[in-house]
Amino acid sequence: MNTLNHPSRRHFLTSDTFASPLISPLYLSAPAVVELVQRKGLKACLTGIADFIQADFMRWEDFDKSARVANHSANGVIELMPISDHSTYSFKYVNGHPQNTAIGLSTVMAFGVVADVATGTPLLLSELTLTTALRTAATSALAAKFLARPDSRVMALIGNGAQSEFQAFAFQHLVGIDTVRLYDVDALASAKLMANLSGSGLTLVLCDSIGQAVQGADIVTTVTADKSYATIISADLIQPGMHINGVGGDCPGKTELSADVLRASKVFVEYAPQSRVEGDIQQMPHDFEVTELWQVLKGQQTGRDHASQITVFDSVGFALEDFSAMRFMHAAALTLGMGERLALIPQLEDPKNLFGTLLKSTASARLEASERLCAT
Amino acid sequence: MNTLNHPSRRHFLTSDTFASPLISPLYLSAPAVVELVQRKGLKACLTGIADFIQADFMRWEDFDKSARVANHSANGVIELMPISDHSTYSFKYVNGHPQNTAIGLSTVMAFGVVADVATGTPLLLSELTLTTALRTAATSALAAKFLARPDSRVMALIGNGAQSEFQAFAFQHLVGIDTVRLYDVDALASAKLMANLSGSGLTLVLCDSIGQAVQGADIVTTVTADKSYATIISADLIQPGMHINGVGGDCPGKTELSADVLRASKVFVEYAPQSRVEGDIQQMPHDFEVTELWQVLKGQQTGRDHASQITVFDSVGFALEDFSAMRFMHAAALTLGMGERLALIPQLEDPKNLFGTLLKSTASARLEASERLCAT
Repeated sequence: MNTLNHPSRRHFLTSDTFASPLISPLYLSAPAVVELVQRKGLKACLTGIADFIQADFMRWEDFDKSARVANHSANGVIELMPISDHSTYSFKYVNGHPQNTAIGLSTVMAFGVVADVATGTPLLLSELTLTTALRTAATSALAAKFLARPDSRVMALIGNGAQSEFQAFAFQHLVGIDTVRLYDVDALASAKLMANLSGSGLTLVLCDSIGQAVQGADIVTTVTADKSYATIISADLIQPGMHINGVGGDCPGKTELSADVLRASKVFVEYAPQSRVEGDIQQMPHDFEVTELWQVLKGQQTGRDHASQITVFDSVGFALEDFSAMRFMHAAALTLGMGERLALIPQLEDPKNLFGTLLKSTASARLEASERLCAT
Repeated sequence: MNTLNHPSRRHFLTSDTFASPLISPLYLSAPAVVELVQRKGLKACLTGIADFIQADFMRWEDFDKSARVANHSANGVIELMPISDHSTYSFKYVNGHPQNTAIGLSTVMAFGVVADVATGTPLLLSELTLTTALRTAATSALAAKFLARPDSRVMALIGNGAQSEFQAFAFQHLVGIDTVRLYDVDALASAKLMANLSGSGLTLVLCDSIGQAVQGADIVTTVTADKSYATIISADLIQPGMHINGVGGDCPGKTELSADVLRASKVFVEYAPQSRVEGDIQQMPHDFEVTELWQVLKGQQTGRDHASQITVFDSVGFALEDFSAMRFMHAAALTLGMGERLALIPQLEDPKNLFGTLLKSTASARLEASERLCAT
């Protein structure tokens, strides 16, 4: 039984009456975010997150940006993705372990924190596994709104894992896609995607191969999970005017598009210093020409230049997208009165008297503790 | 009233019965760590943490190390400090905002996470404000055990803020200090320190100046908080055979020791690449000779060479110390049956079906949610 999805308040941790809102971050658990999305609706969340991402990308210069910090191991990677502007700081913790699904765990698990730049106080601790799926799809759809042909209606969806439904709904709601041609090496994954998209209004075409899936597609979305150099999309599969939304090539050694495809396309990325290491463009020379998405959103650079151009959004996921998504979730949770306060930071009468926390308590406990503390 | 110190169970968040221990990190709040230290005793915690730090420093090569990632602002800094070995990953979030005390907040607030390298699953989320104070003092005392003269009994303690009591107790319990000569520009801070150390068995000598405090001191500990180039200890104040435990010079632009003092001393650091940017040695040329502490602990390098040598431990705090301290706290919490499980990661029947979390719930809520989700 998927117990985390039960909507009752029993999921949520009891509010700690001793946790001061001033220093105690709001906590949004995984079940809380599920309930939040259910209450607001998926379309409203995808649209809202995309709006926040667009607004933040348009003030790109305001942010203290850095490539994420990754600890790699044999099975996968654990990453920290910090970013800040003059008032707000955020970071995300996220792993990538493709073999996890074999033991019943998610490939990607994530959580994050929003903090106040002026004082360093944490303001929000939130699950980001579900939120990452939402923001990744919102970013893909936002990019496609600016890069795909406006008359795009058919999307090929290669890779039908945990991210695939979010991509389908985001492209339906934000881009106007009405048909999804889906394919995965794992037939069960495709069956799951078909089931989850039933009732969505999307026309679903289950395909036997990548080649079949991309036939007639205006947009090709790749969200495969293998941590290896793979060629999901080769040059013979692409047609003039296609937009390729490459989501799964997102860490060193993990690619989906052949170099030929990249050379034949106009390529857009989130943050070039990170994408050159992690994205599909890691295969290309360091001076391979790319355009950063924010430049297109701001009108500083053109997106698609003509209807027959092939465009590629080589998406790896950037810290600013999590910053925006957490801002959206934080605002929504406060509006809905959701979440609990965590006593993660000690509340001190005198901030120079941290040691006092160990001494003060009830009279009896204090005496007892004091005896233990001072026993040498 | 310092409400967070009340020892009753009411402080702790109610256990979430839906949070699977497999994917739900153990949560140690600030009041939980206060209770843990009270139950185990301060000496046992300081000694235990020092032992874990020593054991981890002695397998230095096992760790994937990096300098911390800092986001600087006008008022302070927010840092992430990740580290991992082949099986365990940890990171700490920590701020440094010296002006916080003026508005009743701590200069330093921290929390951290331990995770499983094999799967990326978070195992522990813990407060680290109090724990950082413990591990910083434990590290200082551990270094002094190897670097100070074995007959050291008198310590000058310059800077009587939040970290000062922890330093005093760690040096009493681990190094054998019996007398503390204390000084702070803020007389109230010194009064607080005196009060907190009363009953400790330490002889306390309140001093009017830094010069007076260091007279006759075997060890000089500096834990001041100004974020500026300061000279707390100049060459005329030091005596042959002294050990200087420099704790407060710990970020770019923040120093406590004059260059003359460093030149006259044998200088030890935690991790040279980080210390050359953040420590007192940031003032020195890049080839200024330093010895990393782990080399001394392992016997690869000598510590103090003779009784009249001046030794400096230029401590900035390194991620491995937090790794060790969290391992200690985690083990202690499990032994004592403390902490709660947080539903920070969604629990999925099928890890490829993250979207299913949004659909499944009680029958009625599911229907209602499904209508909202699919409304276009």
